[in-house]
Amino acid sequence: MGLITLTTDFGTADGYVGAMKGVIASLAPDARVFDLTHETPPQDIRSAAFALYRSVPYFPRGTVHCVVVDPGVGTLRRPLAVAAENEQYLVGPDSGVFTLFCPPFTDADPLAVETTNARWWRDGAEPSATFHGRDVFAPVAAHLARMIAAGPPDLSTFGPRVEELARFEVPSPVEERDAYRGEVVYVDHFGNAITNLPDRWVDHAHGPVVVEAGGKSMPVVRTYGDVGVGELCGLVGSAGWLEVACRAGSAADRLGLAPGIPVVLRRR
Amino acid sequence: MGLITLTTDFGTADGYVGAMKGVIASLAPDARVFDLTHETPPQDIRSAAFALYRSVPYFPRGTVHCVVVDPGVGTLRRPLAVAAENEQYLVGPDSGVFTLFCPPFTDADPLAVETTNARWWRDGAEPSATFHGRDVFAPVAAHLARMIAAGPPDLSTFGPRVEELARFEVPSPVEERDAYRGEVVYVDHFGNAITNLPDRWVDHAHGPVVVEAGGKSMPVVRTYGDVGVGELCGLVGSAGWLEVACRAGSAADRLGLAPGIPVVLRRR
Amino acid sequence: MGLITLTTDFGTADGYVGAMKGVIASLAPDARVFDLTHETPPQDIRSAAFALYRSVPYFPRGTVHCVVVDPGVGTLRRPLAVAAENEQYLVGPDSGVFTLFCPPFTDADPLAVETTNARWWRDGAEPSATFHGRDVFAPVAAHLARMIAAGPPDLSTFGPRVEELARFEVPSPVEERDAYRGEVVYVDHFGNAITNLPDRWVDHAHGPVVVEAGGKSMPVVRTYGDVGVGELCGLVGSAGWLEVACRAGSAADRLGLAPGIPVVLRRR
Repeated sequence: MGLITLTTDFGTADGYVGAMKGVIASLAPDARVFDLTHETPPQDIRSAAFALYRSVPYFPRGTVHCVVVDPGVGTLRRPLAVAAENEQYLVGPDSGVFTLFCPPFTDADPLAVETTNARWWRDGAEPSATFHGRDVFAPVAAHLARMIAAGPPDLSTFGPRVEELARFEVPSPVEERDAYRGEVVYVDHFGNAITNLPDRWVDHAHGPVVVEAGGKSMPVVRTYGDVGVGELCGLVGSAGWLEVACRAGSAADRLGLAPGIPVVLRRR
Repeated sequence: MGLITLTTDFGTADGYVGAMKGVIASLAPDARVFDLTHETPPQDIRSAAFALYRSVPYFPRGTVHCVVVDPGVGTLRRPLAVAAENEQYLVGPDSGVFTLFCPPFTDADPLAVETTNARWWRDGAEPSATFHGRDVFAPVAAHLARMIAAGPPDLSTFGPRVEELARFEVPSPVEERDAYRGEVVYVDHFGNAITNLPDRWVDHAHGPVVVEAGGKSMPVVRTYGDVGVGELCGLVGSAGWLEVACRAGSAADRLGLAPGIPVVLRRR
Repeated sequence: MGLITLTTDFGTADGYVGAMKGVIASLAPDARVFDLTHETPPQDIRSAAFALYRSVPYFPRGTVHCVVVDPGVGTLRRPLAVAAENEQYLVGPDSGVFTLFCPPFTDADPLAVETTNARWWRDGAEPSATFHGRDVFAPVAAHLARMIAAGPPDLSTFGPRVEELARFEVPSPVEERDAYRGEVVYVDHFGNAITNLPDRWVDHAHGPVVVEAGGKSMPVVRTYGDVGVGELCGLVGSAGWLEVACRAGSAADRLGLAPGIPVVLRRR
């Protein structure tokens, strides 16, 4: 009877996530609740966006993803409910956190509404000025999960249509005569540096490919097993982008990689 | 068929939380289990108490909150089961962790028992000397959740009545002629400094209000949107207490705030 | 309808755990999913092995434990499904992470298979070279949980029998005329140093026992309550091994203890 995931930058120690879980358990007692993460760095929209991008496609149809990374809480930024591809639903602030579910990452803008109808907020009342996770987003997610369990939901019950969502800029890589120039867009927990260079540009058919980053040139391989322990390489990661990696180590630490650092892919 | 939440200072890496979840899954296979937090700083009773205070009121009636922050494990401190307001149940050590569910935060002492009846411990046997979370509190929480699913539970089956729970001292703010004097009682994940000054003292009706802390004077506003990014302010937080905050930043870092640091609220 | 636990070294922030949860929710929608930990230090096989060792025995029969601590992803290391004692099932790489479910910790080698049958992988397709957690282990765990819900599973459907699992070495303690010599094998979140000295060697019947570690000699007591706050001691921990501990403090910090540091148990 419904599946709700939670993604926040709250950490868990303060009890803010606990309050959201309590609200959900009260309003949608049959829904299952999965933590995606509460370890998004404070107010780091991009990090939360990437976490969602990697997770959401694997969930079953009808899952509601409640996302509270909200630097603009208490300002006029809009609260949203979004129908993404594959009947996934996203609930959270219009902070840019849904960027990777909008064009150019999808073919069309997703259907989205501003969740201004206070009937679906906690107690139908005025929310606190600082905690919309508890007072707006958790209740809307819970009500939406209940609606979905009963059939295709009518998002317009939550509020008026929103045409264009807030987005952060994702830099575009550049194709040159002898190389592709991109940059690091994300560094993960293991120190892998994920770039904006898509897998289709990694073409081993015409000879070896190398990647340059942090002043080093490295072979592009198929998998970690193709290099020795502690060695650097490029490879296509699990979401389809070139990564700079180190087998059993941190490429980011070794090469000083961070978002924005240039990465060049070239044929040797 | 029952809802059990977990709050510990164990972290998750060692497997102690896993053992508790295994015990609960074995004894109450239909109960849902929600993590509140396992990131309470080691043996930090106050931090766990605040996390519970922010979370518990939002859960549905009949929820069992199992709390293991237990500096006194292996001493004579009592193991407890407590019936709190709104038919919430608390299970854990008498370490002070339930302070905020006792007077003056409630009207009356809650009904509480010492869970000395070994019938409800793991295997009905002698618990280990160091891990009552696994051997006493998780089993008692699981059995209690099963009882609740069948009707109002009789706590006296767990052991004898306890009259007064261990409590830590929460400092009282002082009302003076021209100001209210309180202090920081908690600093959250974002660096917001929560004080013991209640929202009823923040009265904008008679002119602007300012808060003084860490050598600075700041406006008291309704929400983050009322100040610029990076600016300091006071505002009433989501649990009803004055907080010293910084929009998109850490007030605690900026002002050197920590529990015990004085905070003054005054009319300008 | 099935219980699946998750143990990884992924952290949660990147969304890799979220992808695994999505795959499980899609393939085994009725299974309950419990996080054991995602805070295993990167590629720390031993830490994950100890977390499992402390947790698995307390779960009900038929639980599937999905474990992804996998320094060898993308190499020829085998993907495994293992039938451990008490009808617990383990799914994960043959990285040594199941060492403590093999002899000498069990009487016999567990039944294990290499999960090479792509029918049970995600989409039955070629897995990514870097994320077998999502593409192999989560789907195998989900399918296995469904099979278990229907009766005793036939592991051979997943692939061919494996005779001997990869293991890390657990050092053996040495019994001398007047002492037992062992070492620290694990330091937990609280700074307790767990040794390889079993509880049967801690025999108070013939007079007081002392433990020596980090240049100090300490009494071996039954519980923390037997020493003062801040005092060091030895005691038998919840899994049956001698620990060097500090009441309300970190023995590891105080004494500089880490895996491999010698510990001696002797009669005074």
